[in-house]
Amino acid sequence: MSKPSYRDIAAILRREIEAGDYERGSLFPPEPALAERFNTTRATINNVLRVLRAEGLVSTQQGRGTTVTAMTPRINRDAVSRYRKDSRERARGAFDSEVRKLGMEPRSDLTVGRVVPPAEVAAILNIEPGQEVVVRSRRMYADGVPVQIAPSYIPLDIAAGTVLEEQNQGQGGMVSRMADLGYRQVRMTESITVRPPNDDEADFLQMSADQRVYVITHVGWTADNRPVEVCVHVMPTHYWTLEYGWDVDPAE
Amino acid sequence: MSKPSYRDIAAILRREIEAGDYERGSLFPPEPALAERFNTTRATINNVLRVLRAEGLVSTQQGRGTTVTAMTPRINRDAVSRYRKDSRERARGAFDSEVRKLGMEPRSDLTVGRVVPPAEVAAILNIEPGQEVVVRSRRMYADGVPVQIAPSYIPLDIAAGTVLEEQNQGQGGMVSRMADLGYRQVRMTESITVRPPNDDEADFLQMSADQRVYVITHVGWTADNRPVEVCVHVMPTHYWTLEYGWDVDPAE
Repeated sequence: MSKPSYRDIAAILRREIEAGDYERGSLFPPEPALAERFNTTRATINNVLRVLRAEGLVSTQQGRGTTVTAMTPRINRDAVSRYRKDSRERARGAFDSEVRKLGMEPRSDLTVGRVVPPAEVAAILNIEPGQEVVVRSRRMYADGVPVQIAPSYIPLDIAAGTVLEEQNQGQGGMVSRMADLGYRQVRMTESITVRPPNDDEADFLQMSADQRVYVITHVGWTADNRPVEVCVHVMPTHYWTLEYGWDVDPAE
Repeated sequence: MSKPSYRDIAAILRREIEAGDYERGSLFPPEPALAERFNTTRATINNVLRVLRAEGLVSTQQGRGTTVTAMTPRINRDAVSRYRKDSRERARGAFDSEVRKLGMEPRSDLTVGRVVPPAEVAAILNIEPGQEVVVRSRRMYADGVPVQIAPSYIPLDIAAGTVLEEQNQGQGGMVSRMADLGYRQVRMTESITVRPPNDDEADFLQMSADQRVYVITHVGWTADNRPVEVCVHVMPTHYWTLEYGWDVDPAE
C-alpha cells in the first residue's frame, strides 16, 4: 500500500473533526503524534495542517499550539431578510437569530464613540478626510467564540447628540432610530472582498495567517440617495456562508 | 535604522506592483535578489511573498517561479443588475461588460454536455444521486488571464433535446431560452463561501495554494418555486469584488 498523501490524511482528520471527535477549543494532537499515527513525515503533517487551517477546522497561534476551531455547519448571514421590516431578525436581532438557528448562544459587546473613519468609509459618506463620525462598534460571539467585528459609521450631522450616541438605542436597532430621526434607509448595497486578517483582527478572531476574512461594506441609502450609514463587517470566511436573494423583473 | 519588517517590505512591493512597475504576467524578482535589495533574510522574503500571494498580487507555481498577477482594480460582479431584463449586461453579456468596464478584453469558452452533477447541486435540483443533467460550462478570461469557471446545471426534463443542449443558444442567454421553454426564472438566490482551490481549479486559474476562491452557488427559481438552474461560479477572490443591492420594505 502506498503512503497516504497529505490530502488523504487531511480528509480523514476533516471527517473526524466534523463528526465531533475533537471538542471545539481543545488542543489538536501535536505534529509528532500525527506523523507517527499516519506513518509519515513532519513535512507532510505540516501540509495537512495548512489545509485544515485554510478550511477553518483548526487554528495555530504562536505559543498556543493548534486548537480545534470547527463550527459546523457555518452561520448563515441572509443579507436581505436581516433588514426586512416585518422580520424579527432585523438590525440588532439579526445576528442573534442567525446564531440561535444553529443551537448556539449569541453574545455581543458594543462600543460607542467618535472616530476618524477609514479613508474608504469617509469616501462613501462624502466626508472630508480627518473629520470625525459617530461609530457604533460591535463584536460578536457564538458560544463564546469571536465570529465577527462590525463597526457602523454615521455622519456627525445625523448622529451627534442623538440616541445614536447612547449605549442603549432601544428596540429595533439603528435602522429604526435613524428613521425616527428622519433618515429612513430605503436601499441597501453590499460590497464583498476577501483578504488576510490584520494583526488586531487575527488576535481578536483567533485566526492564523493562512485564514481569511470577508469584508462586507454595507451602505444604507435614503430616498434622496444619501449614504447615511456604513457598516464594515469583518468575518472569518470559515465561520460564515453569505446568502442573497432577489426577485427578477417580471416584465418580459 | 532598524531592519524593515516583512510587512514594511510587502507594503513597498505592493505599491510598486499597483503602480505598474512590473508587467502583468512577468517574472517577479527572485528571492535572493529581493533579500539583497532589502538587506534581509530569505525567511523574511518568504513571508513577504506569502502576503503578496494572499493578496493576489503575485502567484508562485512549481517550476514557473513567481509571476505578477495583479489585476487592479478588481472586476466588479454586480449580481442583481446582471439579471435585469432591461439590462444589456444580462446573462451571456454580463461578464463581458464587467470586464470591459476595466478596459480589459473579455473572452470565454463553452463546453456543453451531460454529467452527473456534484452532490450539492443534485440536492438543490431535487435529482436522484447519479442521475445526469445538462451542463453548460463556461471558462472566462480577462485580457487572456483565466478569472472564472462557471458550470450551469439544468435538469434533463427541461433541457434534453432543446436549444439548451446546443453550443449556440442565441441572443439573451440561458435565462431567455428557459423562459421560451416555459421555465421563466422569477427569483434568484446566491450563496457564497470561500475555500482553497482544488488541483484542477488551481491549474486552470493559475493559483497558489495560499490563494482562495469564492464559490457562488446561484439558483434560478420559477414562479411555482422550482429550482430550474444551478450555476456554480468559482472565482479567485483576489480578482473579484462581489456587489449586491436591494430596496427595503417602504412600509413603517
